[in-house]
Amino acid sequence: MTQSTLFTLPLYPRGFHIITREVLAAIGELPMEGVLHLFIQHTSAALAINEAADPDVLTDFESLFNRLVPEGMPFLTHTLEGPDDMPAHVKAVIAGSSISIPILDGRLALGTWQGIYLCEFRNRGGSRRLVASVMS
Amino acid sequence: MTQSTLFTLPLYPRGFHIITREVLAAIGELPMEGVLHLFIQHTSAALAINEAADPDVLTDFESLFNRLVPEGMPFLTHTLEGPDDMPAHVKAVIAGSSISIPILDGRLALGTWQGIYLCEFRNRGGSRRLVASVMS
Amino acid sequence: MTQSTLFTLPLYPRGFHIITREVLAAIGELPMEGVLHLFIQHTSAALAINEAADPDVLTDFESLFNRLVPEGMPFLTHTLEGPDDMPAHVKAVIAGSSISIPILDGRLALGTWQGIYLCEFRNRGGSRRLVASVMS
Repeated sequence: MTQSTLFTLPLYPRGFHIITREVLAAIGELPMEGVLHLFIQHTSAALAINEAADPDVLTDFESLFNRLVPEGMPFLTHTLEGPDDMPAHVKAVIAGSSISIPILDGRLALGTWQGIYLCEFRNRGGSRRLVASVMS
Repeated sequence: MTQSTLFTLPLYPRGFHIITREVLAAIGELPMEGVLHLFIQHTSAALAINEAADPDVLTDFESLFNRLVPEGMPFLTHTLEGPDDMPAHVKAVIAGSSISIPILDGRLALGTWQGIYLCEFRNRGGSRRLVASVMS
Repeated sequence: MTQSTLFTLPLYPRGFHIITREVLAAIGELPMEGVLHLFIQHTSAALAINEAADPDVLTDFESLFNRLVPEGMPFLTHTLEGPDDMPAHVKAVIAGSSISIPILDGRLALGTWQGIYLCEFRNRGGSRRLVASVMS
């Protein structure tokens, strides 16, 4: 059985942001056992799972992703929407448009340090729409 | 309940290609609610979700992935199958061997600009086999 | 229906390792049809699917991921846990914290050359905990 919820995140600036609480609030009660699938309906932002303790990690993610896919590469052709656009598409594929997390004992079975990340790659990305699907 | 379909894509050259229509044709009618899981049974091609409007995006994806994992790095040891082989394996892990998309109201709940990509990383990759699993 | 198994991998050194056999041993009998979801409860190691034949591939994965996210970048701020820590977080997001594999005829529907990888990005990562969820 799959139970789906569509919801919109509050507006986040460019960067990496922990959204575990927003996701849990949107989906409501979890089944005892299952898998949560979370999907972002956009092509220049992504979802990921990583450290949710030290905020410095979020800053370093932004720096390292910018190093990985720099703006202004002279060979780019899709440049009309600004220098942050095409790199944002590639970063979104690198991080991925969805994550899946097991549900055990009625809770997300995240590890001690894990949280859900919104990876916002645009300078002005707007509010992002997500679909949460709980499979049980 | 899971319904699986094995199918083979037509031959695509090296590069990024939108295959949303081929995938939908292969799996037939979708349930009202669920999740589509799509898996590629190969190690030098990948699946992703990104912009399906401007073909320039596909060209820039190919350029930026080549910049990310260049061919001919002198430290490589798995080189017997050609200079495009080992970079193709790494690119495949970066993009990923599977994608999952929620199904709402009997349709893939993709965002306005999203489509399904085949990322073909080999010069002569051959036809690629996919497995579609519809979970409902 | 989802059936979950929590298990711990034996200790692996930094690098890429094929763990298909360990995963299959941990989850026991598979249903005829379904999807296996495999999740790692850590933020500096990842799971992936790629070539399981030539061990040179594993070595080259380690080299290419180190080239992709080098240690010692001067702009990093999360450095207290050592120079391998922050790069490990980014590599983990690049490769991903989970994989999903279709199950057909009671077996993982992997391609001929595919196996499951543990990507251990820390110098001393310790034993890693996984959750396997079989959806059928």
